[in-house]
Amino acid sequence: MLKAGRILPAPELSLETRRRFLKSSLVLTGSFAATTAAAEALQRNLPPNVPEWSQRLGTPVAAKGYGDPSPYEAAVQRRISPGLTRTQHSSISFTPLQNLFGIITPTGVHFERHHAGIPDIDPQQHRLMIHGMVKQARIYNMDDLLRFPSVSRIHFIECGANTGMEWANVAVPTVQYTHGMLGCCEYTGVPLATLLDEVGYDKKARYILAEGADGAALTRTIPMHMALDDVLVVYAQNGEMLRPEHGYPLRLLVPGVQGVSSVKWLRRLEIGDQAWNTREEALHYIDLMPNGKHRQYTWIQEAKSVITQPSGGQVILDRGYHEITGLAWSGRGKVKRVDVSVDGGKNWHAAKLQKPILPKCLTRFRIDWWWKGESAFLQSRVIDETGYVQPSIEQLRKVRGRLSIYHNNAIQTWRVASDGEVSNVQVA
Amino acid sequence: MLKAGRILPAPELSLETRRRFLKSSLVLTGSFAATTAAAEALQRNLPPNVPEWSQRLGTPVAAKGYGDPSPYEAAVQRRISPGLTRTQHSSISFTPLQNLFGIITPTGVHFERHHAGIPDIDPQQHRLMIHGMVKQARIYNMDDLLRFPSVSRIHFIECGANTGMEWANVAVPTVQYTHGMLGCCEYTGVPLATLLDEVGYDKKARYILAEGADGAALTRTIPMHMALDDVLVVYAQNGEMLRPEHGYPLRLLVPGVQGVSSVKWLRRLEIGDQAWNTREEALHYIDLMPNGKHRQYTWIQEAKSVITQPSGGQVILDRGYHEITGLAWSGRGKVKRVDVSVDGGKNWHAAKLQKPILPKCLTRFRIDWWWKGESAFLQSRVIDETGYVQPSIEQLRKVRGRLSIYHNNAIQTWRVASDGEVSNVQVA
Repeated sequence: MLKAGRILPAPELSLETRRRFLKSSLVLTGSFAATTAAAEALQRNLPPNVPEWSQRLGTPVAAKGYGDPSPYEAAVQRRISPGLTRTQHSSISFTPLQNLFGIITPTGVHFERHHAGIPDIDPQQHRLMIHGMVKQARIYNMDDLLRFPSVSRIHFIECGANTGMEWANVAVPTVQYTHGMLGCCEYTGVPLATLLDEVGYDKKARYILAEGADGAALTRTIPMHMALDDVLVVYAQNGEMLRPEHGYPLRLLVPGVQGVSSVKWLRRLEIGDQAWNTREEALHYIDLMPNGKHRQYTWIQEAKSVITQPSGGQVILDRGYHEITGLAWSGRGKVKRVDVSVDGGKNWHAAKLQKPILPKCLTRFRIDWWWKGESAFLQSRVIDETGYVQPSIEQLRKVRGRLSIYHNNAIQTWRVASDGEVSNVQVA
Repeated sequence: MLKAGRILPAPELSLETRRRFLKSSLVLTGSFAATTAAAEALQRNLPPNVPEWSQRLGTPVAAKGYGDPSPYEAAVQRRISPGLTRTQHSSISFTPLQNLFGIITPTGVHFERHHAGIPDIDPQQHRLMIHGMVKQARIYNMDDLLRFPSVSRIHFIECGANTGMEWANVAVPTVQYTHGMLGCCEYTGVPLATLLDEVGYDKKARYILAEGADGAALTRTIPMHMALDDVLVVYAQNGEMLRPEHGYPLRLLVPGVQGVSSVKWLRRLEIGDQAWNTREEALHYIDLMPNGKHRQYTWIQEAKSVITQPSGGQVILDRGYHEITGLAWSGRGKVKRVDVSVDGGKNWHAAKLQKPILPKCLTRFRIDWWWKGESAFLQSRVIDETGYVQPSIEQLRKVRGRLSIYHNNAIQTWRVASDGEVSNVQVA
């Protein structure tokens, strides 16, 4: 039997992170006794407190339209981290992971990362050129691309800089900012391998340069073995055409690889025999190692997990039962196991994994927890199908130091204080 | 090698059904030769026609927000069928299946069916009462429900009246109207079995009455064996809280069963030992049989499939390769096979099924087709894991007659004329 209780966002963070439901809970505390008596009196009768909205007609069906979230959910938004970037044209907005359920990220709150803002592309005028080491260079319009045999797959996209603010110290308070450069959607498009066959790529080719049609003309080198494996030229996300901020009308999707490689507003693919080392590739998404050298072309997003509820900035108001839940993923394939600790990693317990478990896709995990009011340190640790174990922040720092921005996949710790406040901490 | 070509919506239906991309294709016909020459000249150089949007900054990242589809996609909307219902408070809007990809239905265009409009429910005030044949009746608020152990699953919801206009004759032109009372989303909520355990349901109970908090106080009888199997009390859809038109803040989800049973704005569950036969159940969602009697409580949505592209109202502009694609589903479990015919059912060819194939969930199928300009009759036929084969309309009429409104799962036929026009027809 469960007991009444709830997890509350901290008041000082309320505008940023609270759920309205949860905010309201204080008022409703202890409602069980009263409402149970009411229910007993009402066996087989309508409750007397028929709410006002049950006593009148609601809003009629519109002749046509496109729906929006409830106004009561207006606080659930993707948000920038003020001051993080010098301009909002080259900036980031973060997914509100603490407010989400399941594995599908609503397209409207999927994180953004742009290098020169969102271009307004006329799909009638958009073209994709494929050239370089090919028999027959081609320029496709959107009609051409929509004609090709297509596939749909659910994959995560994680920015290589996700959790990047946490390398040196605890930097940000909530999971929206620690892990919110992460999303997972159903994508539909043409396998890049099909297009490469179509242009007759040279078998000696080893790399592809992908270029976006945005003002940054963002470029990324894609290894040919990935291009021939599971890379997609995507036009649809979560069932509908891509949205402008996610690459409309065309983007690349390189599953399991840092998000920047999934070039948005894709306009050009050049086939070659060496990595391009373009300006963006030389300056960004590279790992500053402890010896002062940069490691370039860190493609894969290694296995990672995070508890999203309860998480930093929330307050647990009641002792008793809570479901701890979060997300796990691996750029190398499927999630095999997720362990959860409530004592900072001394003891681990296997979490339930929500099926289907798909490769290079978020997996939702859940575990039961009875909180007795003690101080607790919540952690999750994923093991992927290759056997790779998500490292602690100290293990990662031993190899990578503290100066990196990118590819931080360390175990996240949320401290639960005895008053229920949850905060972002790092433990040795 | 593929040839240039495209599928166009018919001009007379254009505002309703066209894709802007496809609309634009006429202008672009024959672009292959010209663009190929351009591409050859441009090997290893940027194309000279750098589009205007690549030459300037785009829209900056907003401080916070919730994204919308591209304005170029504004025609993709759910739509009513004018005149179908006498009031828009008790009416239907249809999902634009012809414009969708994969299996996830974007929440914003998921079909609606309301009986008294959309109530504006304050989630702080919303309650769910469970009473009747139970040890301990209870009233839960939303906080309580969000505390329970949760699950997420992807399921379709199909209105029992979907394709209902086609019983007697061909009635509507496009797949949005023939099959658009259909959607498929990831839902998160509490297993109803958990709540039934919590209230201590009487083991002699056989049915549950579910009641909505809308002005219609819509009621449906749910068999206890379903309630204990896979029924969910749902608060989230496609990763976020339910939207108002889909039951915010709480709805039932009865997987595989006609949509009306998945009662929206759920406020009451009464446990009993017989079916309630309430007004809504006696008047609607019942099958008028050839002998003049009504068949009540047709729970399950039997296996069904439909080709969504090409489909009624579109025009195929070019001969050559086309991918035929559509959706298949079964209220009894997984889709096992989908066959496609282009000659009205004389010859069948197995389609590719997109994985993962999930129970009581849409499955996307695809098959290659070379159109030589002949008149064709496109059909799809699903076989589910129970071995059930989707019937032809004539097979179905032999059992059910022509007077029903509900539960029409017949094979759909799209006629392709030699000029490429696609229309809704019925063949013996």
